[in-house]
Amino acid sequence: MDWHMVWNDTKDQLDLLDQRFLPTREDWYACTDTDSTIFALQVMVIRGAPAIGVTAAYGCYLAAKEAAPAGDNWKQKLDELLIKLEDARPTAVNLRWGVRRMRAAWDEQLELDNAGLRAMWLELAKEIHEEDKRFCRKLGEIGGTVINDGDTVMTHCNAGALATSDYGTALGVIRGAWDAGKKKINVIANETRPFLQGARLTSWELMKDGIPVKVACDNACALLMKKGLVDKVVVGADRIAANGDAANKIGTMGVAILAKHFGVPFYVAAPLSTIDRETPTGDDIPIEDRTPREVTHVGETQIVPDGVEVYNLAFDPTPNELIAGIITEEGILEPPYAESIPAAFARSGK
Amino acid sequence: MDWHMVWNDTKDQLDLLDQRFLPTREDWYACTDTDSTIFALQVMVIRGAPAIGVTAAYGCYLAAKEAAPAGDNWKQKLDELLIKLEDARPTAVNLRWGVRRMRAAWDEQLELDNAGLRAMWLELAKEIHEEDKRFCRKLGEIGGTVINDGDTVMTHCNAGALATSDYGTALGVIRGAWDAGKKKINVIANETRPFLQGARLTSWELMKDGIPVKVACDNACALLMKKGLVDKVVVGADRIAANGDAANKIGTMGVAILAKHFGVPFYVAAPLSTIDRETPTGDDIPIEDRTPREVTHVGETQIVPDGVEVYNLAFDPTPNELIAGIITEEGILEPPYAESIPAAFARSGK
Repeated sequence: MDWHMVWNDTKDQLDLLDQRFLPTREDWYACTDTDSTIFALQVMVIRGAPAIGVTAAYGCYLAAKEAAPAGDNWKQKLDELLIKLEDARPTAVNLRWGVRRMRAAWDEQLELDNAGLRAMWLELAKEIHEEDKRFCRKLGEIGGTVINDGDTVMTHCNAGALATSDYGTALGVIRGAWDAGKKKINVIANETRPFLQGARLTSWELMKDGIPVKVACDNACALLMKKGLVDKVVVGADRIAANGDAANKIGTMGVAILAKHFGVPFYVAAPLSTIDRETPTGDDIPIEDRTPREVTHVGETQIVPDGVEVYNLAFDPTPNELIAGIITEEGILEPPYAESIPAAFARSGK
Repeated sequence: MDWHMVWNDTKDQLDLLDQRFLPTREDWYACTDTDSTIFALQVMVIRGAPAIGVTAAYGCYLAAKEAAPAGDNWKQKLDELLIKLEDARPTAVNLRWGVRRMRAAWDEQLELDNAGLRAMWLELAKEIHEEDKRFCRKLGEIGGTVINDGDTVMTHCNAGALATSDYGTALGVIRGAWDAGKKKINVIANETRPFLQGARLTSWELMKDGIPVKVACDNACALLMKKGLVDKVVVGADRIAANGDAANKIGTMGVAILAKHFGVPFYVAAPLSTIDRETPTGDDIPIEDRTPREVTHVGETQIVPDGVEVYNLAFDPTPNELIAGIITEEGILEPPYAESIPAAFARSGK
């Protein structure tokens, strides 16, 4: 499913399957410059930390192209565009990571003219895109070992192919187990209000792969666990702090607390690029506050009366003590994360 | 707000504000016979345990009227209709309670002819209707004492005026505090997927009363509690077992577990008619499994792909150890409920 995020060399643009309209419409959206890329990120044409990182990398290239007409001032113009791009969304650290990685490559070749930078950056963006695919495969292969054949795995939000370049992180773990021959796996996709990534996206991509999936309202989580219908929980992450606290889609912390209550192991799956060693704890992770409309309406149907306010905090930080393991492309990190995280970075050479 | 459920003497029917279409449309629905009453219960034109009990009482009267043309066989016909009515929905015990209370009155006057029974039953249904209003007021007055001025109270689903004849149970507690002069109360209404009673109904009726209310996705519960934004949780119940376990709208048990985790007191508010001493524990309470459509669609918007199955279990049982108190019209019952429940029934003379 790497076709949901396609660099189009002919049109010099990033084509994205528009996730706002799945599962009932398969529309495409083109990122052609900085503003259209920022818009795609903000309204969630594309979402999911790794996919955001890749989009950011291509976005840097598009920004460089946009800065070219500024002539001698192109570097200053580009710098302004990159700052805007990096600020498009606050929680997923991969956005910042993507832009900074592109900047770091530029810093090493400051002599490049605009055309030279664009050529170098487009190659690097493509490399980041391919690397994300490799890391997801590796993460899935490693993580698949924690899933037993016959397990029912609950996941929250969508940390699948659609949230990455391909294969996914949490769903990569499920696919890793499936591809290793564990064909009796079942998945419960929490619908994940308000944006309904579980109902709309996770179910859609697992169904395409033939992996059995059932959608449940977020409210059903406790009852399903109490009935013994959930063997493992695996979720993705938008930013993991240095101590292993993991911010993910709103509701994840609740699932983790319920999992602890019912004795269900709770795993986080994410590439090292989602671990932010500059952020000490989950409480230091900025939580995005999104438009009320996502809560007050579903499609065109209004579900909250006019004049009533709503909360739309988009993420929550799951404390490290609720996490049985953080599954990365460098192995399954175990508590204490303040030790296993630096060790994984050391192994990776980053 | 007793006008949402109105006995219409002129038309000899029960007029119900159709809760399927709130908050954007205020349509009315007429219960004119057994089938239309059962339909109203099943599709949730009306819902909420106490309101179901009152509807059931009027439904018995409508059944008696429907049985009249059966001539000498009217009692047998009526018995069949009452069995159908009592089975309309499985979880809320007030449905059975309402029908059995009407039957008990009939048992005491078996000599009545059909017209005589109808006359007696219509008066009794109106009395049950009025009694429910009185009990909610009393419950609210008693329960209001657990709310401090300045508290933010979270509630799940709608246990308000719309779930009762008037005033509500959980919202009755909030109104009781408000009416006692505690005007700095705030309410967080969990939206309560899939039927969205919190988003659509709780917010609507509190807004009409001028009580500050904010809607949150069910997923936000843990984060709001972690941020210290929730001082108390008060919910209703559909059936309370003899040991104090309380079945309520799906998601309630999760809220209770999170409340325990974050040290937030969790209260259940319900009249004694919701306590079913014939059901030993929460695990013995039948849980309704409703149509997938409530999960797969919101209004006309499809949110789950065709071909993907869903869970739509409508209730869950909160274990008694998570409940700080059961607020009834006979006082606030405290653990151990196996003792405080019989004592309350003894006080009430039931």
